[in-house]
Amino acid sequence: MTRTEPVNEPQVAVEDFRTLGRRLSNWGRWGEQDERGTVNLITGERLAAAAQLVRRGRVFPLGIPLDENGPQSGMRGNPIHLMSETGAEQVFPGGFRYADDYIFMPLQSSSQWDALAHVYYDDRMYNGFPAGDTTVKGAVRCSIDKQAAGIAGRGVLLDIAALKGVDWLEAGTVITPEDLDAACQAQGVTVLPGDILLFRTGWRRKFVQEGDAAAFMAGEPGLGQRCCEWLHERDVAAVGSDNWAIEVLPGESPDALLTVHMVLIRDMGMSLCEILDLDELAEDCHTDGCWEFLFVAPPLPISRAVGSPVNPLAIK
Amino acid sequence: MTRTEPVNEPQVAVEDFRTLGRRLSNWGRWGEQDERGTVNLITGERLAAAAQLVRRGRVFPLGIPLDENGPQSGMRGNPIHLMSETGAEQVFPGGFRYADDYIFMPLQSSSQWDALAHVYYDDRMYNGFPAGDTTVKGAVRCSIDKQAAGIAGRGVLLDIAALKGVDWLEAGTVITPEDLDAACQAQGVTVLPGDILLFRTGWRRKFVQEGDAAAFMAGEPGLGQRCCEWLHERDVAAVGSDNWAIEVLPGESPDALLTVHMVLIRDMGMSLCEILDLDELAEDCHTDGCWEFLFVAPPLPISRAVGSPVNPLAIK
Amino acid sequence: MTRTEPVNEPQVAVEDFRTLGRRLSNWGRWGEQDERGTVNLITGERLAAAAQLVRRGRVFPLGIPLDENGPQSGMRGNPIHLMSETGAEQVFPGGFRYADDYIFMPLQSSSQWDALAHVYYDDRMYNGFPAGDTTVKGAVRCSIDKQAAGIAGRGVLLDIAALKGVDWLEAGTVITPEDLDAACQAQGVTVLPGDILLFRTGWRRKFVQEGDAAAFMAGEPGLGQRCCEWLHERDVAAVGSDNWAIEVLPGESPDALLTVHMVLIRDMGMSLCEILDLDELAEDCHTDGCWEFLFVAPPLPISRAVGSPVNPLAIK
Amino acid sequence: MTRTEPVNEPQVAVEDFRTLGRRLSNWGRWGEQDERGTVNLITGERLAAAAQLVRRGRVFPLGIPLDENGPQSGMRGNPIHLMSETGAEQVFPGGFRYADDYIFMPLQSSSQWDALAHVYYDDRMYNGFPAGDTTVKGAVRCSIDKQAAGIAGRGVLLDIAALKGVDWLEAGTVITPEDLDAACQAQGVTVLPGDILLFRTGWRRKFVQEGDAAAFMAGEPGLGQRCCEWLHERDVAAVGSDNWAIEVLPGESPDALLTVHMVLIRDMGMSLCEILDLDELAEDCHTDGCWEFLFVAPPLPISRAVGSPVNPLAIK
Repeated sequence: MTRTEPVNEPQVAVEDFRTLGRRLSNWGRWGEQDERGTVNLITGERLAAAAQLVRRGRVFPLGIPLDENGPQSGMRGNPIHLMSETGAEQVFPGGFRYADDYIFMPLQSSSQWDALAHVYYDDRMYNGFPAGDTTVKGAVRCSIDKQAAGIAGRGVLLDIAALKGVDWLEAGTVITPEDLDAACQAQGVTVLPGDILLFRTGWRRKFVQEGDAAAFMAGEPGLGQRCCEWLHERDVAAVGSDNWAIEVLPGESPDALLTVHMVLIRDMGMSLCEILDLDELAEDCHTDGCWEFLFVAPPLPISRAVGSPVNPLAIK
Repeated sequence: MTRTEPVNEPQVAVEDFRTLGRRLSNWGRWGEQDERGTVNLITGERLAAAAQLVRRGRVFPLGIPLDENGPQSGMRGNPIHLMSETGAEQVFPGGFRYADDYIFMPLQSSSQWDALAHVYYDDRMYNGFPAGDTTVKGAVRCSIDKQAAGIAGRGVLLDIAALKGVDWLEAGTVITPEDLDAACQAQGVTVLPGDILLFRTGWRRKFVQEGDAAAFMAGEPGLGQRCCEWLHERDVAAVGSDNWAIEVLPGESPDALLTVHMVLIRDMGMSLCEILDLDELAEDCHTDGCWEFLFVAPPLPISRAVGSPVNPLAIK
Repeated sequence: MTRTEPVNEPQVAVEDFRTLGRRLSNWGRWGEQDERGTVNLITGERLAAAAQLVRRGRVFPLGIPLDENGPQSGMRGNPIHLMSETGAEQVFPGGFRYADDYIFMPLQSSSQWDALAHVYYDDRMYNGFPAGDTTVKGAVRCSIDKQAAGIAGRGVLLDIAALKGVDWLEAGTVITPEDLDAACQAQGVTVLPGDILLFRTGWRRKFVQEGDAAAFMAGEPGLGQRCCEWLHERDVAAVGSDNWAIEVLPGESPDALLTVHMVLIRDMGMSLCEILDLDELAEDCHTDGCWEFLFVAPPLPISRAVGSPVNPLAIK
Repeated sequence: MTRTEPVNEPQVAVEDFRTLGRRLSNWGRWGEQDERGTVNLITGERLAAAAQLVRRGRVFPLGIPLDENGPQSGMRGNPIHLMSETGAEQVFPGGFRYADDYIFMPLQSSSQWDALAHVYYDDRMYNGFPAGDTTVKGAVRCSIDKQAAGIAGRGVLLDIAALKGVDWLEAGTVITPEDLDAACQAQGVTVLPGDILLFRTGWRRKFVQEGDAAAFMAGEPGLGQRCCEWLHERDVAAVGSDNWAIEVLPGESPDALLTVHMVLIRDMGMSLCEILDLDELAEDCHTDGCWEFLFVAPPLPISRAVGSPVNPLAIK
């Protein structure tokens, strides 16, 4: 055999992300003052239809525990929970006692929504708002509290790890549009406009099994850049995963970092939900063959914040 | 008439809360190891029925903003949000920039769920677990992460302020079972087993109008002790309000503090959701005459915590 | 003459602070790259002489307690101290147990040094460094860690409250150069080049007696603007007080805020030490008639910080 | 010679730490209510004599930088410094602007004093106070604020790394009383009652060169258990080092952890000062041959805390 090309060499170089971003841009689509982006695609009608998907009334919480054993390593630390009262030290009239506590945490250290103000390039964030609007006082535009009324709608889970027949995809594994299509077909589910798309890579399972935070953060399997277009074509409202950045890391571009973040958040205005635990939900979907559900994930309305911890519920 | 007694003097002294607590106790009702209490009343069937209430797909977020302008004064401070990155200081290959942030907060400083471990008396918390299980390391039993899969179900709003024809009830105003019945009748709604009952006192509106945190915390209108029995008889799953302690303050007992907390949380195992903003929801309910909705309020699964901030969604 | 003007009307309008700042400017005095300002005036010789002042070896700690009962009210909160371990929950081989704890605090919420980067005007901080050097990542120039080797030297206490025969001066009371001279004369002490000048207003005593944080922060007695020149003429190295801003509040200028801060810190490069407890030291000085001592107040070398808590020691 | 025993095998098994602790106990020595321990040995006379050691007025700050690059790894994190204002966002009348900031940190994450309440065994802390006095609300007894007036006195540096002719001692290297004596002799210095003894192992230099926090915390060279007696015999007032636990790790006892901590802090009441940077001071001492100096290290008087960050000054 004379073939000399490595099988994993890209046949077509990855598109320049700025070009892609311009092509997929949603700037102005929901008005010049819009700060919610693709969440606008979740119309009342679509949300009402999603609620009808609830049949058994079983709830799957997708948020990971917030504690010192989380996956953070390096630039962000795990949440720090500290008690201020246990009740042992003081008793009130009649016998009343109470415990109380505090948390200190990076807002993106656990299961979390990225605000649309979280990332940007070329001095503009989503919808053209100037990046300079975000200062030490927080984000004036596109902060997470602008999404307070959401994010609820029809959720669809695609189990890419199962599609590939592995416990987890390895770091650097690019998920392609063809993978997403194949998962839809294998699972018998269709992604509709206004959906919240969840995809499972097994990256959380790997962390739970191995407990290696540095490995969890060092890279990950995730969406390749071409998936941006796939999501755009289908008018997906939001995307979530069990990895920490949605996109593959190391990325496809030798000279640009986190290009999927830049296109999805900054150009398309798409909210990302990261570090989810999709294992129990996936198991149930494999059992009953139903991969759609009501998804409800309200961020905390932290004023001017660029992210929020969240405990999304999938309700079937 | 020779009557000289003040009209507001209680004709029947308030019952001893320990006696009341024993009568309404749910200890053991869902097993000796149960840590979820009345939330168990939200069966799958009931939750599925609640989802069917969603017709317009309109979402009402009930969480107040988390920022320095919150209602805390005194023992707890408001959430402190601090930026760690704005994106201005560093640019990554390709032009990627990101903003990032932190929060430091008492877990009960904004809209919040009380964990069942939050209050207790006589060395026992809900279901008889020893109070000593809660230490500087947090609560081993009945912590908020035990409610991670909730709290979602049928929500019903009772607008007591509207019933009384006032913008807000004054601090110290006791809401009685008769008031709850009257509100149900006036609104044409029935409270069913497994419901999350929200009642509106106007106390949040008062704070929004006046901006006086010290006044907000100094007292409040709220449930009188007899309402515990009313909630118990109807198998209510959880209760929420726009005040900060559910119950009336100053309380009805001259010699016991927060007796409604003690009976509801410790004896009945009922979760409380406090400091909600019910104004927009109430306005909508007055308009369409529909006081029931899907209520979804997932706490953050903070390990061993005794409370969690939450942004509950009412979906109609 | 029937003149009815109030006696406290200024006969000469307060000088424009920019004019004053230019006249007293120390920019360039210790080199173009200097970030320490007047602390440079504490030469080795002067410090060695100050050490010789120690005779009895009695130490007066001047830092106030860091806890929830501090004087903060409003823009900054008091330090929050939380335990993470008490030792009760875990025992190590041999029986070893340990307690551990955390602090969360504004760096200027207790007794503290202002970094020279703390205040500025007209886009320049001390020595002409661009204000823009301070970002969300902290201060590149004139941060508190640049003073790590200090601040130690000869301290002199002037008890202005005693001079005026009051427990404390009222808020808004302007301390004048004449007051400083009178105190020096009454106490029989001379302020020398390189000294750390402490002046006592009684404002801390008022807070201790009354416990009113809002009143403590609402205003204060303090240095009038003309004292800047007095300090400059004497080559004072640093100034400290028992109030929270060194200078009188409300200030003397109807149209400018905190002008003494601007001139002392930004133009002269003088470090300010605020919210000290000078009561025990003053009492001792009244007793022994000795108002000079070794003063040692090392800030924590927090990288890029604009202030640091400190517990200065006066050693006699 | 046929000797086959490894040279480093202990000829005499390490003494049971409880036996040692009883023999060296200072309980009751300064009264039954004493909470300061060996710091009491720094009499006024001794402190006054120490001040006379200052000749050149040169200051050596011994505190390490408080920032994200510190040596913490694992159970404690490094200090987190966050800006709340840079001055860019708001201007006050006249042009005044200010920057402000916060810190969140474990109190023992940087250069720090251990409070006498920090460690204990057998339910008693120093001077017999019950360990149960320390709760979620902090330490009632022997907290760090009880040392507010200190810790200042004569400091003596012993450079053990230099004595051994190495850049740094390796982890697990036991420093013996004989080493301390040899260093005293080599340096020509005598340790006197009331001294603060600093010893240099090079462990900080290793961290600075290699930047490996996990390695820094994984073990260390330090005092062996027999040094407790050496310190006791000489009435040393406090001990400090450039490692993080004073004592050798792994320790000498196969079945007991941190026995030197237990004997020094709990039985002798000796304050420990850890994670110092002694390199510049050592260099100067090698140059001038003078190993004694005025040492001033005031802890922050954090109420009920079991430790405090500190920036000790050595003044020569």
